[in-house]
Amino acid sequence: MNKDHKRVAVIAKRVSRKAQETAAQLADWMTRRGLEVAVDEDLAAVWDPGAYGIFDHAGQYDLVVVLGGDGTLLSVARSLENEIPVLGANLGNLGFLTEVRRAELYPALMRVLEGDYEIEPRALLDVTLRSANGDRQTYRVLNDAVINKSALARIVELRLEVNGRRVTTYRSDGLIISTPTGSTAYNLSADGPIVCPTLPVVVLTPICPHALSQRPIVVPESATIEVTLVTEEEDVYLTLDGQEGTNMRAGDTISVRRSEAVVRLVRVVDRTFYDNLRDKLHWGE
Amino acid sequence: MNKDHKRVAVIAKRVSRKAQETAAQLADWMTRRGLEVAVDEDLAAVWDPGAYGIFDHAGQYDLVVVLGGDGTLLSVARSLENEIPVLGANLGNLGFLTEVRRAELYPALMRVLEGDYEIEPRALLDVTLRSANGDRQTYRVLNDAVINKSALARIVELRLEVNGRRVTTYRSDGLIISTPTGSTAYNLSADGPIVCPTLPVVVLTPICPHALSQRPIVVPESATIEVTLVTEEEDVYLTLDGQEGTNMRAGDTISVRRSEAVVRLVRVVDRTFYDNLRDKLHWGE
Amino acid sequence: MNKDHKRVAVIAKRVSRKAQETAAQLADWMTRRGLEVAVDEDLAAVWDPGAYGIFDHAGQYDLVVVLGGDGTLLSVARSLENEIPVLGANLGNLGFLTEVRRAELYPALMRVLEGDYEIEPRALLDVTLRSANGDRQTYRVLNDAVINKSALARIVELRLEVNGRRVTTYRSDGLIISTPTGSTAYNLSADGPIVCPTLPVVVLTPICPHALSQRPIVVPESATIEVTLVTEEEDVYLTLDGQEGTNMRAGDTISVRRSEAVVRLVRVVDRTFYDNLRDKLHWGE
Amino acid sequence: MNKDHKRVAVIAKRVSRKAQETAAQLADWMTRRGLEVAVDEDLAAVWDPGAYGIFDHAGQYDLVVVLGGDGTLLSVARSLENEIPVLGANLGNLGFLTEVRRAELYPALMRVLEGDYEIEPRALLDVTLRSANGDRQTYRVLNDAVINKSALARIVELRLEVNGRRVTTYRSDGLIISTPTGSTAYNLSADGPIVCPTLPVVVLTPICPHALSQRPIVVPESATIEVTLVTEEEDVYLTLDGQEGTNMRAGDTISVRRSEAVVRLVRVVDRTFYDNLRDKLHWGE
Repeated sequence: MNKDHKRVAVIAKRVSRKAQETAAQLADWMTRRGLEVAVDEDLAAVWDPGAYGIFDHAGQYDLVVVLGGDGTLLSVARSLENEIPVLGANLGNLGFLTEVRRAELYPALMRVLEGDYEIEPRALLDVTLRSANGDRQTYRVLNDAVINKSALARIVELRLEVNGRRVTTYRSDGLIISTPTGSTAYNLSADGPIVCPTLPVVVLTPICPHALSQRPIVVPESATIEVTLVTEEEDVYLTLDGQEGTNMRAGDTISVRRSEAVVRLVRVVDRTFYDNLRDKLHWGE
Repeated sequence: MNKDHKRVAVIAKRVSRKAQETAAQLADWMTRRGLEVAVDEDLAAVWDPGAYGIFDHAGQYDLVVVLGGDGTLLSVARSLENEIPVLGANLGNLGFLTEVRRAELYPALMRVLEGDYEIEPRALLDVTLRSANGDRQTYRVLNDAVINKSALARIVELRLEVNGRRVTTYRSDGLIISTPTGSTAYNLSADGPIVCPTLPVVVLTPICPHALSQRPIVVPESATIEVTLVTEEEDVYLTLDGQEGTNMRAGDTISVRRSEAVVRLVRVVDRTFYDNLRDKLHWGE
Repeated sequence: MNKDHKRVAVIAKRVSRKAQETAAQLADWMTRRGLEVAVDEDLAAVWDPGAYGIFDHAGQYDLVVVLGGDGTLLSVARSLENEIPVLGANLGNLGFLTEVRRAELYPALMRVLEGDYEIEPRALLDVTLRSANGDRQTYRVLNDAVINKSALARIVELRLEVNGRRVTTYRSDGLIISTPTGSTAYNLSADGPIVCPTLPVVVLTPICPHALSQRPIVVPESATIEVTLVTEEEDVYLTLDGQEGTNMRAGDTISVRRSEAVVRLVRVVDRTFYDNLRDKLHWGE
Repeated sequence: MNKDHKRVAVIAKRVSRKAQETAAQLADWMTRRGLEVAVDEDLAAVWDPGAYGIFDHAGQYDLVVVLGGDGTLLSVARSLENEIPVLGANLGNLGFLTEVRRAELYPALMRVLEGDYEIEPRALLDVTLRSANGDRQTYRVLNDAVINKSALARIVELRLEVNGRRVTTYRSDGLIISTPTGSTAYNLSADGPIVCPTLPVVVLTPICPHALSQRPIVVPESATIEVTLVTEEEDVYLTLDGQEGTNMRAGDTISVRRSEAVVRLVRVVDRTFYDNLRDKLHWGE
């Protein structure tokens, strides 16, 4: 973004007073620099409602700044209807998506305003749930789509097809379908591999599979991945980026494809993906 | 059990017609041999209610025969108020607990009637849930007690103490507290070790832990294991042997100890635990 | 390959009498169909040396048929100086690379002669070992390059850089650098992910790492991967496709890049990669 | 050890100048307190040879103080012919066996001299290698016995029997037979479970097994464990505590039993096994 860019949105983590205070200072700082600032509704409600515009998911901005953690960024990124550059700043622990630290925030923004930054596109997945009764609903995820049984349900059976060809039927607690971006999130806890974020792949990792040979698989992002819930259990859910969820019933199928849209992450800190692994996973020791 | 033994109970898997038909034949066969037979209420309702006694969890029997799978045996074993020898027969796949196959059933019973068998005691755990509000409820398990978040809940924090000493706080999907008997069940799917069934140990295996170094631990069965739910999530459950469940709330603690009671498994087939591993886990190839 | 193709090589697994007998029949069958047949030196020595040409790694053929297992195919594929289509037939267990079974061999070849087949290109890696003393040697692998300590050596330290940027230093038994083709070989035993064979990626999987968070990483095949042996141990080896090996010393570095050459596998059986996973890893049960 | 105890041995890590300097100070400090001090030969060679006795593995001491890391303590503990209390002090990173830090050394020793300490017995294993040619050699380990192929050897086949009953044949890089004490060493890197150090068990963990279902097993320490090398490979080794090694050939068998001797660790720091897990495995975060 160079200096001609005018419209900026500032979004803070809900319930975080620190994020909201930082957002207030930031919005003020940006306004004084001549930028037109929109803030999310929560913030606007707390502040003088007239001072800033209200952020609109369908709106056009030159930059969206997210203050919070990876969760806040996931939520915003998924919802953007246009491919707006997103800069994530964490106010606590370093995140994989929010790699600007509090102390780096203003220097980072100045670099962005001067056009000294890069855009790293991140793949999204479109996840279509086709119910046995014919309903159809599409969701978008940046990290992962997870089919998961509830604590009280018995093991579920999930039939996997890739490009219309049968792969296997998992008997497990569930299945994680992860982008490279999501590979360091839930996928990693379930023993899936770490994947460099720009690779054109999707990772399929079963959760606590009954068959010990059902190891994670890495498949092309161009593949059509279909997963059908075979078993009759009431408490099975499809969860999107760990944030939204919907019930699944026997016979329901999800179909997962690479989205045409991408998330455009603003990279301004000279920190590689590998640096993040060292910092967050203690690889430096 | 030698020929003087008189009272036998026959319990079949619910909803399995095959198990119930086998049970009917078996009850008849036993009656003709002069044994006094009790059947579970479900069976009695289907048959002539007067032909047999009704099985009573608090009753005294010389033998309980369970027809079904490991799940049926778990349910029966947990509920017995006296330490009655239990013989498990599977009607489908070989189970770890139900190792008599359909074709071996009558020869196996004849050996039992002749006293040609062994008793293998299996440890039970007493699991006391102390609610933050003072309520207290104790459960008994043969396989495992599991604290598990529901599909829609976020990661939970579980603080573990052993013998009153802090061990760690797990940030994970949950925690499995398993007997040796349960080590080949859920624990195995969650990457826990296989444990010979007679060892005086308990296995603690986190489910999808956030910290990759939180590997399964094997602790003494004499230890007092306490796990407290730290996080405020509504959808966290304590599940007993994968069959019974109850809600947990922030501040609730479970305390796990070796039970004074044991399950007395009747062993009549010359098949070791290791033979079962080969058969069920494809170790023979 | 259509009927105009003339030059075919037949190569059989050494020490396998069955492979050699099958090769003899096959060479005869091909000759009678008017093809010009070359056989490897071992076979020629056993048979009438004049009947066939002698296979030359630098030669031009329209097809190379490999009879044996994945090991034999790896060895041939690595050595070919031209990108000749390779058809692998296994005479025992199904292989990931040799997926034509004995009974399918002649039908498969007839389809190949009629041009009814597909070529699946598989990536190779060029592995350059630069010794601390300045020596430099390049190897080519289809499955993997492995740095491994010997049984008697202590843990080794291996410093990893990707594209000139530091990633981590492994303290481990070694490191596997695997193509997608190799992902189902040693990599899988070391807890690495399964990767669809056509993906443009390389998998880095440490062997028994001291730091439990050092999980496998999937990186772009376009990356330059450099691994330096930091520790002073005498018994550390670089092994290529599990078949060739050479000693490494402290300060030695390997540099791994995607090769310009590919292996051109002939696919004639309607069996997907996923079908192979089911058959070989018991995913069908 | 109370004040009447007189004979103390001080052993320092070879090649560590820091350990040797600390040992010199310590020996002097002890002598001034009226203790009779023996030092290991290496130390004696550096110092005035007449000042102290020379440590003798077969000798009787009231205490052996080991300065170094877990490796030094393993080596000393294995070699002691009498069950002498051993106190381990680390001079760098905290060890599982050497848990007294440099700064705690003198306060810890004063507590030991005042009798304010506990003895924690640790199991040893006797490992007998019976060669196919009839030779027989017995070794003793505190951590583990490992059968391991060299980097250049192909996969090995290892047949496991427990108490004379067949368990499985591993096709793998090797097999770790670990005490509870060794469970946090090599076993942990190979995905084996952590075991509380006083439990009467042995852990069997295959290294990179070909069959993914061959998970670690925990067996009774009272069992007789026999492992036979089936395959004809020249470069297979039996390694004891990672320190001593010997070649194995096809047909050779090792027989592992709990040793009658134990190592008597002096515990003087109020730090539980679980505290060590937190410190060394980052479980506190």
